[in-house]
Amino acid sequence: MIIIGERINGMFTDIKNAISNEDPAAVQEWAKKQKEGGARYLDINVGPGSANPKEAMKFLIEATQEVSDLPLCLDSTNYDVIEEGLKVCKNPAMINSVPAEPDKMDRVFSLAKEFDAEVIGLAKNQEGIPKDAESRMALAMELVATADAYGISADMLYIDPLVLPCNVAQDHGPEVFETLRQIKLVSDPPPKTVVGLSNISQGGIKNRELVNRTFAVMAMANGLDAAIADADDEELIAAVATARIILNMDIYCDSYIDVFKQQ
Amino acid sequence: MIIIGERINGMFTDIKNAISNEDPAAVQEWAKKQKEGGARYLDINVGPGSANPKEAMKFLIEATQEVSDLPLCLDSTNYDVIEEGLKVCKNPAMINSVPAEPDKMDRVFSLAKEFDAEVIGLAKNQEGIPKDAESRMALAMELVATADAYGISADMLYIDPLVLPCNVAQDHGPEVFETLRQIKLVSDPPPKTVVGLSNISQGGIKNRELVNRTFAVMAMANGLDAAIADADDEELIAAVATARIILNMDIYCDSYIDVFKQQ
Repeated sequence: MIIIGERINGMFTDIKNAISNEDPAAVQEWAKKQKEGGARYLDINVGPGSANPKEAMKFLIEATQEVSDLPLCLDSTNYDVIEEGLKVCKNPAMINSVPAEPDKMDRVFSLAKEFDAEVIGLAKNQEGIPKDAESRMALAMELVATADAYGISADMLYIDPLVLPCNVAQDHGPEVFETLRQIKLVSDPPPKTVVGLSNISQGGIKNRELVNRTFAVMAMANGLDAAIADADDEELIAAVATARIILNMDIYCDSYIDVFKQQ
Repeated sequence: MIIIGERINGMFTDIKNAISNEDPAAVQEWAKKQKEGGARYLDINVGPGSANPKEAMKFLIEATQEVSDLPLCLDSTNYDVIEEGLKVCKNPAMINSVPAEPDKMDRVFSLAKEFDAEVIGLAKNQEGIPKDAESRMALAMELVATADAYGISADMLYIDPLVLPCNVAQDHGPEVFETLRQIKLVSDPPPKTVVGLSNISQGGIKNRELVNRTFAVMAMANGLDAAIADADDEELIAAVATARIILNMDIYCDSYIDVFKQQ
């Protein structure tokens, strides 16, 4: 599993202020810190309530690219903002995200094709997030089939089965794991999988970090490829590095946690 | 997953001394401490080099039973020692363990039938521990079929796929997970599954506790039912309790870790 660092997001005060003041310092600090923590992509999100989200997106991307070569994951529900961002990305990016809704898939897959971008596809549609794995899979198949129609290979897609907080939707947990496994069977090459890790522990759950890292390695045991997560959470990174050793994805050495961060 | 507390074992000096001096204090302290930590069975092992292992086994069992009602897991490769132990167990016990070898299965399953005991069956035979899941499964099937011939239901069997240290046999990890999943498909009711948790981190691996608890919850995500483990490792117990919440096995409440310990 790879980490998509979540921290360059305008919902955090330091990033919000960086945008307002056009001061790249905090953005660049987090770009470097997340890479050192083990992130392999950086999520870029202007946050809520931005007066000019297109300009904010460009600012965050350009600030980040001055100090980092990591690929970026452009995170917005406003596809005009995504498009502006894609125009200034130096490297192929990831679009975060699109639900299994025809008009949105049309827009996002067209952009993905034009900019050679990967896409996070969400297992939900106008009716919301289904509970059982079968219904999540139906939406995943719709995303894969539609992407294919736009000439986008399944391995450019990251399917997010959508994780809900374990105190309000506890019965979703096993369904998410089952979905992660089934997704690997739908095509060759199969789609990749991703989750927004902190969703499992939102809404006042105790031991948030413990819940996050436990869920992360359990999902890895079911084939999870990526997580949008806190690359500054050292215990999470240690757990993920350990799970990669156990899954025989990286070769064991005594300093395997440091090696994972530096890869 | 339930914890079978590993600590009443003559390989530890305090238990070895307890046996030599016929002093039950250390044994009884660990019996109580492991239950408080979250153990649901207590493993009983006289350890290596005991002058009179049958008497030692009886001593450990009787000392434990004076302070604990938990079921016991009698741990020896000497089946005469197991038999002596079964005679003094107040409650149905678990026999730990038998490999898929005809003469040993004959002896152990006969004892299990006589004493209404559960049995840990090991996925190995005279030729050793196989690497791939298919070969482990062939041995698991042999254990299930032989138990059945002795009138022992599959759900009285705990199959141990056998875990090896992840620094010397890294490629076994994914095979063990695959075996855990496949075991659930061989019969209805299916056999249960168990691992000796600390085996994953033997032989000088760094971060032993981290490796143990990461492996534990990943195995739980593949259906693991039980682990012989250190019930005094609070971070392991917290991780296991958290994985049970994520798997919807226990209902979330803010004090779920304490609730797990007290169940």
